[in-house]
Amino acid sequence: MEARLSQQLPRGFRFAGVAAGIKKTGAADFAAIISETPCSTAATFTRNAFPAAPVLYDRDLVKSNPAGVRGVVINSGCANACTGDEGLADAALMARLAEDALRQPPRTLAVMSTGVIGPRLPMDRVRAGAELAAAALSPEAADEASRAIMTTDTRPKVALREAGPARLWGMCKGAGMIHPNMATMLAVIVTDAAIAPAALDAALRAAVDSSFNCISVDGDMSTNDTVLALANGAAGPVDGAVFAAALTALCQDLAQQIVRDGEGATKFITIGVSGAASASDARVAAKAIANSPLVKTAFYGGDANWGRILAAVGYSGAAVDPGKAQLWIAAGTGDASSSADRLQLVAQGRPLVYSEERATAIFAGSEIAVSVALGSGEGSATVWTCDLSHAYVDINGHYRT
Amino acid sequence: MEARLSQQLPRGFRFAGVAAGIKKTGAADFAAIISETPCSTAATFTRNAFPAAPVLYDRDLVKSNPAGVRGVVINSGCANACTGDEGLADAALMARLAEDALRQPPRTLAVMSTGVIGPRLPMDRVRAGAELAAAALSPEAADEASRAIMTTDTRPKVALREAGPARLWGMCKGAGMIHPNMATMLAVIVTDAAIAPAALDAALRAAVDSSFNCISVDGDMSTNDTVLALANGAAGPVDGAVFAAALTALCQDLAQQIVRDGEGATKFITIGVSGAASASDARVAAKAIANSPLVKTAFYGGDANWGRILAAVGYSGAAVDPGKAQLWIAAGTGDASSSADRLQLVAQGRPLVYSEERATAIFAGSEIAVSVALGSGEGSATVWTCDLSHAYVDINGHYRT
Repeated sequence: MEARLSQQLPRGFRFAGVAAGIKKTGAADFAAIISETPCSTAATFTRNAFPAAPVLYDRDLVKSNPAGVRGVVINSGCANACTGDEGLADAALMARLAEDALRQPPRTLAVMSTGVIGPRLPMDRVRAGAELAAAALSPEAADEASRAIMTTDTRPKVALREAGPARLWGMCKGAGMIHPNMATMLAVIVTDAAIAPAALDAALRAAVDSSFNCISVDGDMSTNDTVLALANGAAGPVDGAVFAAALTALCQDLAQQIVRDGEGATKFITIGVSGAASASDARVAAKAIANSPLVKTAFYGGDANWGRILAAVGYSGAAVDPGKAQLWIAAGTGDASSSADRLQLVAQGRPLVYSEERATAIFAGSEIAVSVALGSGEGSATVWTCDLSHAYVDINGHYRT
Repeated sequence: MEARLSQQLPRGFRFAGVAAGIKKTGAADFAAIISETPCSTAATFTRNAFPAAPVLYDRDLVKSNPAGVRGVVINSGCANACTGDEGLADAALMARLAEDALRQPPRTLAVMSTGVIGPRLPMDRVRAGAELAAAALSPEAADEASRAIMTTDTRPKVALREAGPARLWGMCKGAGMIHPNMATMLAVIVTDAAIAPAALDAALRAAVDSSFNCISVDGDMSTNDTVLALANGAAGPVDGAVFAAALTALCQDLAQQIVRDGEGATKFITIGVSGAASASDARVAAKAIANSPLVKTAFYGGDANWGRILAAVGYSGAAVDPGKAQLWIAAGTGDASSSADRLQLVAQGRPLVYSEERATAIFAGSEIAVSVALGSGEGSATVWTCDLSHAYVDINGHYRT
């Protein structure tokens, strides 16, 4: 597995994942990814009004040095969020300590943190993590890096794609706010494509918009969410469209892994909305369905509860013609309205006579697709989500017991 | 109880609650409230884009005849929602049948429905309900009426207030979307105050805005939500400000009863936001806290998880200065920031050192107040909500088992 993986990894990157004692469990909690050469860099950050210190640090770093970043270090176990000016100084110190230990010039490493909100970073352990990572760096250790950023994730999440001569590898963790006080969706994507910072930024924004921004576990947006892309150019130039498609596919792969590993998730739900007045309206309607606790509990219970789905569309704010709405369900992950096995439940805003047995069979599966057509225009969107289960309440309400 | 109640009820109204066989259980499912004289009428309706047929019917009725409505009939067990043109015809026929049976002129009765979305109204049973109600009408049967509109409510919800010489009585049911396919928050308020339709409308909108619009069980807005107010003038004129205050207090009483009877609710939560850039911003921030599944599960688990609360404010869209946020908690239902027993957890956007024991004791209670100050202006808002429990998932996910 490792041998095969390293053959497919982008050239010119080294990885590490080590245990620095930041997590009380002793599990791996410090990751590093270092490029042999400076990278084109792009990033998207949480829009939460309480951004964590590493978000503020990276936002400034990427803006001021978009062609000179050489890597990133990430700790899990402490989010360095809601920590004020001291937290910002800690984030800067974390970067400096890592640059020293990993022998990189100043202001060339990004920093990310994920874990408990509130406490300060234990800087002695951060320093130890950087030193351990320096000793462990290897072109093969991508898997170790992906494990070191886990918090409540039950498994590491990585994906690989190719774009002409170039390779793309990405890792991510978390979904929404996940664990009590555990913040964050983090993703790092590295590629050996040669691409200018502005082009990488545009490609990343488009990819994130149709991947990480299309998933919902519980509708909460954390203080630390960050997607960082580093392109070191080792594989030479790539076709822009090919690269953009590969980056989007990679991000969708990672984003869907987050949903499948969502807290307490037992089902993977694909929600398509078409016929909206605009793409924005379609997104708003699809997210309203995905975020509705009533819809999510119905998925959990295996109940083909189309009334809740239409009601969510109805309060979403999307323009709706009540007399034109259509709704289909199907097993699997595609577009329910064009699935061979689709079952239409609603036409012209009214319920059809359908087989409850077939509807229940579809909703009993672990992958369910729902498609709503609004009849108001050409806008469409797809969103991925999971169900809301007893386990979600256990994890988020009773984690101390 | 009945004797005392009827002495306090507004003069000139008769009530009925009967079992017409619309509910499969045989429980009471048809209510009527009839005034001896025409009423000033006002109503507020769901903003859901799929409004149910009775919403469309009543909206037109109240608009066209705001001084001539004489009562309302309500069925539970069938929402008459997502039923298209046939449903609209059914709603009109329900009004006509009730006007016949209850000997009222045409176009003088409003109609409401709550229950399963999708099915057509069983018109023979609606007719039977109207005839049974006509036989049962009594000035004392307010309690029976309040029971006949229940769906998953575990108890009837009524409230009484006085405004000078006038009395106000109200009943309501439901919260958000409550049960699978069970739609609706419905409220009817009757008063013997003499008040013009326009003044009643203004008073009702203000009262609803600071009561029913300030509660959240699961963030879902049903297709049928309606608040109807009927004023028959039997007690003569009232002071406008006194009436408005009484109406607001009555609506807040009813709204809080809905939250306390929310599906699976084990705790009653009062969320205050102050120091916002505007009242609208304060409302948005308070609702984001109230609707966050992570916050609601933390309340359920008794975990003083201030990080989730701040994060919800952060993604709410309200203007926030991260360095100025403050957060208090307290037991009870008041304003946590001014409670004698308040515990401040956050100042200047950062966690204070506080007693985890005291915080846990506060969150272990059945009534919890949270107050957030944003430091951005003078806007404030209060929202009431409940926790998200295993029972909520049971009720909404597994209702068939």
